[in-house]
Amino acid sequence: MTHAREMLDTHPGTATMMDADALIECIEACFDCSQSCSACADACLGEEMVGHMRRCITMCLNCSDVCATTGRIVSRQTEFEPAMARAALQACAEACRLCGEECEAHAREMDMDHCRVCAEACRCCEQACNEALSAVGT
Amino acid sequence: MTHAREMLDTHPGTATMMDADALIECIEACFDCSQSCSACADACLGEEMVGHMRRCITMCLNCSDVCATTGRIVSRQTEFEPAMARAALQACAEACRLCGEECEAHAREMDMDHCRVCAEACRCCEQACNEALSAVGT
Amino acid sequence: MTHAREMLDTHPGTATMMDADALIECIEACFDCSQSCSACADACLGEEMVGHMRRCITMCLNCSDVCATTGRIVSRQTEFEPAMARAALQACAEACRLCGEECEAHAREMDMDHCRVCAEACRCCEQACNEALSAVGT
Amino acid sequence: MTHAREMLDTHPGTATMMDADALIECIEACFDCSQSCSACADACLGEEMVGHMRRCITMCLNCSDVCATTGRIVSRQTEFEPAMARAALQACAEACRLCGEECEAHAREMDMDHCRVCAEACRCCEQACNEALSAVGT
Repeated sequence: MTHAREMLDTHPGTATMMDADALIECIEACFDCSQSCSACADACLGEEMVGHMRRCITMCLNCSDVCATTGRIVSRQTEFEPAMARAALQACAEACRLCGEECEAHAREMDMDHCRVCAEACRCCEQACNEALSAVGT
Repeated sequence: MTHAREMLDTHPGTATMMDADALIECIEACFDCSQSCSACADACLGEEMVGHMRRCITMCLNCSDVCATTGRIVSRQTEFEPAMARAALQACAEACRLCGEECEAHAREMDMDHCRVCAEACRCCEQACNEALSAVGT
Repeated sequence: MTHAREMLDTHPGTATMMDADALIECIEACFDCSQSCSACADACLGEEMVGHMRRCITMCLNCSDVCATTGRIVSRQTEFEPAMARAALQACAEACRLCGEECEAHAREMDMDHCRVCAEACRCCEQACNEALSAVGT
Repeated sequence: MTHAREMLDTHPGTATMMDADALIECIEACFDCSQSCSACADACLGEEMVGHMRRCITMCLNCSDVCATTGRIVSRQTEFEPAMARAALQACAEACRLCGEECEAHAREMDMDHCRVCAEACRCCEQACNEALSAVGT
């Protein structure tokens, strides 16, 4: 579906500094979550009760930006710097946790389906970032 | 694989202003191409003959940014503005055309596999943007 | 205030392909407008009558993304490609026009000061993009 | 020069959750550093000895992305979430530290003026992020 694995497989470097599967899952999850969060911010804005959605919209906008940046940083393998990757992955896991909790609450209490889907994308990305953090090491 | 279709299906708006399939293909292609181009710029930077890759790196960086922006704009359906979508999609189709041609040349002449994969992602995205443009209308 | 001029003055290339003053004004206006539009989307979200601000929020989010991308593209001078610059500048001028009109209307009719400031940033950026377009040529 | 202060002054919220001066300095420094780093990556790419600039280019691309994202996150005051701001500001301070050190080394050892200017932008932004972190609290 995406070209992330092929891009990594054809990289001229001899080896990534971390497990390739964890890296690819993280890259794909970051780009997917960035899209879901942009779409969920927009869907929340389209709700009749938009006044109740302010925090959710803000968490989604923040999370979309952090995921896009993190997906790019971990895509850059030529001069991979563990300290940079760790800082980005930690921020991304936190953004996904905050956004996922907010979306989950709206899914449960207000039965908002777009928030349910977005919460799932956030949880996937949070987990993928945490696994990538383990792969990068401390 | 991605959550783009589910996000669109759960949007509170009654209908998108354009064909849903064309829209989803465009969104997914934009985010995928943004990732491929970031990864290809990095892979080109890792090539021994990096001095020959300057134009390719630049086209990839530009295309990655334009695709990310266009993927977000067409993801926003609540107050979809055709004039904005058209301007973004035209810029994106042009960025993908320029980057795809450059990558294709390196794939053919220098046998660079990452450029071959990236050229494919660019062509997919260029086509998806052009089909979305037709769906938006003039 | 910003480092845009110093960055251009110290670039190793012999010359930019366009008037340096027009280029620097455009770069600074794009980054400034990207910030103003992100801040105005957030301020609109904080208004009591947020239900009336949906279009303004969407135009601001779109314009912020397009300005950020365009500011980066015109900052890249090593392998400057006029066709890419033109496509981005045209999209950016259009995004600024649409967002500026929407913000101006809220400033005038609803006396919203953040929209007045943002409309000014949009007009500056639209003009800077149009002047950069003239400098790039057709 | 920029509209960041006026945008904050006209925000409908009663008060920011942090010192306004620290916030505005941080916002302006993030957007400025994002531009400088994009321009420095491009200038490094234009150097004859581009093979020696790989790490600098990568640090600049990463730092430009992190600064852009952080500048947006701290611009969003309506539903300001300290945990999100802290995570972003910590990642940004780290990106600026890593990029600033790399640029500083090239400025000193290879007399590269664009790296000298970019190192200055990075140090300003690192300091502004650290001061914003203090203002947000723990």
